[in-house]
Amino acid sequence: MATAPLPAASQVLDLTAPLPLDCGKDLPGVRIAYETYGTLDAEASNAILICHALTGDQYVASPHPITGKPGWWVRMVGPGLPIDTDRHFVICANVIGSCMGSTGPASPAPDGQPWAMRFPVITIRDMVRGHIALLDALGIARLHAVVGGSMGGMQALSLAANFADRVERALVIASTARHSAQNIAFHEVGRQAIMADPEWRGGDYYAAAGKGPEKGLAVARMAAHITYLSEEGMHEKFGRNLQDRDAKTFGFDADFQVESYLRHQGLSFTDRFDANAYLYITRAMDYFDLAEEHGGRLASAFAGSRTRFCLVSFDTDWLYPTAESRRIAHALNAAGCPVSFMELSAPFGHDSFLLDVPTLDRVVAGFLG
Amino acid sequence: MATAPLPAASQVLDLTAPLPLDCGKDLPGVRIAYETYGTLDAEASNAILICHALTGDQYVASPHPITGKPGWWVRMVGPGLPIDTDRHFVICANVIGSCMGSTGPASPAPDGQPWAMRFPVITIRDMVRGHIALLDALGIARLHAVVGGSMGGMQALSLAANFADRVERALVIASTARHSAQNIAFHEVGRQAIMADPEWRGGDYYAAAGKGPEKGLAVARMAAHITYLSEEGMHEKFGRNLQDRDAKTFGFDADFQVESYLRHQGLSFTDRFDANAYLYITRAMDYFDLAEEHGGRLASAFAGSRTRFCLVSFDTDWLYPTAESRRIAHALNAAGCPVSFMELSAPFGHDSFLLDVPTLDRVVAGFLG
Repeated sequence: MATAPLPAASQVLDLTAPLPLDCGKDLPGVRIAYETYGTLDAEASNAILICHALTGDQYVASPHPITGKPGWWVRMVGPGLPIDTDRHFVICANVIGSCMGSTGPASPAPDGQPWAMRFPVITIRDMVRGHIALLDALGIARLHAVVGGSMGGMQALSLAANFADRVERALVIASTARHSAQNIAFHEVGRQAIMADPEWRGGDYYAAAGKGPEKGLAVARMAAHITYLSEEGMHEKFGRNLQDRDAKTFGFDADFQVESYLRHQGLSFTDRFDANAYLYITRAMDYFDLAEEHGGRLASAFAGSRTRFCLVSFDTDWLYPTAESRRIAHALNAAGCPVSFMELSAPFGHDSFLLDVPTLDRVVAGFLG
Repeated sequence: MATAPLPAASQVLDLTAPLPLDCGKDLPGVRIAYETYGTLDAEASNAILICHALTGDQYVASPHPITGKPGWWVRMVGPGLPIDTDRHFVICANVIGSCMGSTGPASPAPDGQPWAMRFPVITIRDMVRGHIALLDALGIARLHAVVGGSMGGMQALSLAANFADRVERALVIASTARHSAQNIAFHEVGRQAIMADPEWRGGDYYAAAGKGPEKGLAVARMAAHITYLSEEGMHEKFGRNLQDRDAKTFGFDADFQVESYLRHQGLSFTDRFDANAYLYITRAMDYFDLAEEHGGRLASAFAGSRTRFCLVSFDTDWLYPTAESRRIAHALNAAGCPVSFMELSAPFGHDSFLLDVPTLDRVVAGFLG
């Protein structure tokens, strides 16, 4: 793996036309911030779009500008890696509704003030409409592949279903075609934690002296983070180990390592993420139901598609368990689409798609060709 | 099942001696509030102690004084029911640390002001010490049985392990001998939600004008409530059904039934429960590790015991899954204790122990004799 940061191009695209949204409104002045890696070939035939997850961003293989940490998928994207930037032109765009440069609730509305809660509620398909506008601007008629894990997988499914002629291959990892009641419930806890924070101020916290609802956002992140790990993984990593002490303190400090870890996850998240963006993106995920968009039958979403699909689930992922991927595989079979589906064994729960799972590397490299 | 409320005796016991605690302190002025049902026989041999769960209370089979709702186990406790009050003297005491009459953080300290966060951190064994003091006062040398689900099961295990000569039978339902990393993590989210609420005021909210940290407490309850239900049960009950509307509103109201349900669970909880009590009781549960108390070997906790055990788990309980009960059963086997262990099939997740599971009724009736 390369030790130097991968050369990346940080760019923004300002759409000239308003973006039509599922809610019926048009979003004006949309900016899309994206990174690219590698070179687009003369036929514009070697492009791979990577879609990021809820709290991800376009920095898939380059350092994060706020945290300074390496890109979130450096183990997968780079020269000679499964998503090979020597051969492919890799694009990763911040989704609309987010907060890393693309238009979201923290962006200025036409009146110059932040949108805040005046921002329209967007959907996964709206995010994909933003991606398509970007592909149009880049002159890419047809992607070699769209790839995504978790919410990125939802975008990959939505792109393949709604813009089938724009993509040859769709790789969907640890994802689902709909948010379940339990998925919605966990997100609702997070939203309520943010909105319960008086610093949220109905979403109008941008001009306030403080940092906004960072306590509520930290609690939301903590609750969500538990769902990204497996019970077994947490047991292996933390067990009941104490944090920097030999005995319980009989107090409310973080006696246990798992408490300390979660608190850190919550607090560090607030340095890099906007609370309103968290509200909007979780809402988009909860609204996602690909079957509902297509007359209630999932197979109808893929009718007539010539896209090749690859679905990957992890045996310890209880957020989007294997049964959800299997459901998609069945629908693709019913629609007559070529699909391969694998459940991989990995101890890390939902987060397995981001971590060291060599079998995933081989599946990705093999499918992308 | 009886339709009229079961005759119950609401009583309090004021301990004359301070209660020694695991933290090393003695708790002065302890009051224990309890309910009894049925009649103690002349030999004081027919007593069954029921231990309640985290947010439960002594109103096991009589209406709750705040909510007016029926007792939390009316389907199990009453004349002719599996815990038969025609034949047994049934006791249920509010645990210390709680807020329904027994001494807890909302109770006055010796200086006349509420304990608040000056209340000592208690353990499950400390709760059991309170129960033992009550049994002493009632003249009950040896229980016919101790029975509990969830945190009630922890108390039953602790009582059987630490006061083996005080109990003939221990019935432990949907419980565990230790809190796992994931269990601790969920509780920590709830505590952080409460402590992030500015109305918490470091625990000193009792004299404040408002109702205390009710928003934080509601979020804590919402997060915990998800863990009490199974994914399948939530899907069956709510799916992606919308609440009183035909289409998504593209807003942040409770569009989905599961959101509306969770918000209601959170809000109604704050009417009946003290936030500081929630902090202290969750801490006691997180600290619970019966093996650790006994040299690191769970079997040692039961060495020499002549108590008969019955363990029940539910196949959809992911909070305290079957593997945790199996672990206890193995330890009891290693200690040479008589134990029966059953995994029951029920769709309700952890909450199955409170709900309509006829096989549980038969197990309880059979074991208690």
